[in-house]
Amino acid sequence: MRYPQIRAFTGEPGVIRLAGHRGARGVLPENTMEGFEFTLNTGVKLLELDVTATRDGVVVITHNHRLTRSMVRDAEGNWLQGEEPKVAALTYAELQQYDAGGLDSSSAYGQRFPDQAFLSGVRIPRLADLLALLQRPQHQDVHLFLEIKSDPDLLADTAARQRLVETVVADVRNAEMQPRTVLHSFDWDLLADCQRIAPEMPASFLTQLPENDADVGEDSSKEVNPVAGCSVLDLPARVATAKGQFWCPYYLDITADALVLARDLGLTTMVWTVNEPEDIDRMITLGVDVICSDYPGRVQRLLLKQGMHWLPAAER
Amino acid sequence: MRYPQIRAFTGEPGVIRLAGHRGARGVLPENTMEGFEFTLNTGVKLLELDVTATRDGVVVITHNHRLTRSMVRDAEGNWLQGEEPKVAALTYAELQQYDAGGLDSSSAYGQRFPDQAFLSGVRIPRLADLLALLQRPQHQDVHLFLEIKSDPDLLADTAARQRLVETVVADVRNAEMQPRTVLHSFDWDLLADCQRIAPEMPASFLTQLPENDADVGEDSSKEVNPVAGCSVLDLPARVATAKGQFWCPYYLDITADALVLARDLGLTTMVWTVNEPEDIDRMITLGVDVICSDYPGRVQRLLLKQGMHWLPAAER
Repeated sequence: MRYPQIRAFTGEPGVIRLAGHRGARGVLPENTMEGFEFTLNTGVKLLELDVTATRDGVVVITHNHRLTRSMVRDAEGNWLQGEEPKVAALTYAELQQYDAGGLDSSSAYGQRFPDQAFLSGVRIPRLADLLALLQRPQHQDVHLFLEIKSDPDLLADTAARQRLVETVVADVRNAEMQPRTVLHSFDWDLLADCQRIAPEMPASFLTQLPENDADVGEDSSKEVNPVAGCSVLDLPARVATAKGQFWCPYYLDITADALVLARDLGLTTMVWTVNEPEDIDRMITLGVDVICSDYPGRVQRLLLKQGMHWLPAAER
Repeated sequence: MRYPQIRAFTGEPGVIRLAGHRGARGVLPENTMEGFEFTLNTGVKLLELDVTATRDGVVVITHNHRLTRSMVRDAEGNWLQGEEPKVAALTYAELQQYDAGGLDSSSAYGQRFPDQAFLSGVRIPRLADLLALLQRPQHQDVHLFLEIKSDPDLLADTAARQRLVETVVADVRNAEMQPRTVLHSFDWDLLADCQRIAPEMPASFLTQLPENDADVGEDSSKEVNPVAGCSVLDLPARVATAKGQFWCPYYLDITADALVLARDLGLTTMVWTVNEPEDIDRMITLGVDVICSDYPGRVQRLLLKQGMHWLPAAER
């Protein structure tokens, strides 16, 4: 196998891998060090997270392109008012004025995660902070789905896109984390840049068919995802043609036939974001390689109930 | 006020206090250091936990009198088979052979907490371990509901009961934690021992009326709780007569009238174990002093939604 890191993401009989979505968004604030540490402490070995860059070129872990009022407070502890600032327009120092420790229970987004603990004084972390945590001896077997968020305002700006990829890759290389990282995006042009700039890391192609709704209260990736007009059965071949190693369909899109096609093409398949027990059970039955969930504890318990596990015996 | 620690448990306009039940049983294994640390990390300042003693007199944090097969694995990682051993019949060293890190998803008890993460290699902690954690500077404002579990087999053995109280109190005094601890039990005879042996700590009287069912899959405390034949309106006066400072009714028992009686008698009222959103909202509306929940994050979010908080502004 060309990419040894793929093994950590590959299922086998009795094993479906488990990725914590933005840490464990159902339990703790997303894309925070607090959330990642909790997720790792519960024995989850794969983390999914989102990165973009600040105005001064610091790679930070956050999902939306703008600080979002349902999940960010200002320096005085109030939910953001007025225009939501763009992350790319702020310096890292400016970004540290904001509190990313909790959701506004009154917002549509906040209502999606009613059990998420409410913390204060939580900062948007740098990618480098997470990579440093993963150097600890107990975290040597942790691997990453590193999702690079493509700015829809800059879709035509190939230089900006390439700069973002270079900045992210520099952080990963600086921490020598390439053997534990997969580069992941909805933007397939950006993934082509990844493959050229960082051929030592596998490319992971996210898809979501237009007919399934985007998630309420967060940036949609549909604008940058080139799958309009496709059927789910077209997607594995398209990923293989683009020389991807991973196919990551939305869980409502995938079918048994599509999974067979992906497997025949040598792709590793991760489904996102699977939270309801009946959906998790359906993905277990389907036999995907990886389930990505906001509730990793729930997935652990449902796997065990079926006599399965999220790690092969030798890795437990 | 005779007991300064009561302030940390007392509600006020806009504030209902929040206690993490056995840590945060909905999220992480109950009565474990892992669960307590998580709960504290989410800004919860009150912990509820259960203690009993091993054969060699070590106070340990666990709820049931017997190691229970739905939540304990043996040294080989298998769910307990055969007769469940009594905690009081094991030494502390023997107890450390068992793994308390997760629930059996197939058991009735396991099904009550489907999101609880599944850990391995987790040990039943000593009370002294938790008290040591609470010495850290960031945890100086954490207070405890320390529930002493009375063995139904030894109800008539007043010497054994007194020995248990003395052993628990010795641990608390050794850590100088009396100013942050409330002694809590369903067994009112045991609470009388507490009041005599440790008059520096308030006594907290748990109640559950016989008409409301005990919780599935765990030891019931009804056998030791002297409330048969009572109406909920009788309970506050009975606690006051017994010179208790806290009344802790089951959340399905309490009424607005009973709460008024308790308040008029100067009692602090904590309700347990409130997990469903509609029940939490009802307790918020009722205006109890403390809500004890397996899902502290959920209670935080519901309090904030009503413009309330679990801490007064000066303590945040």
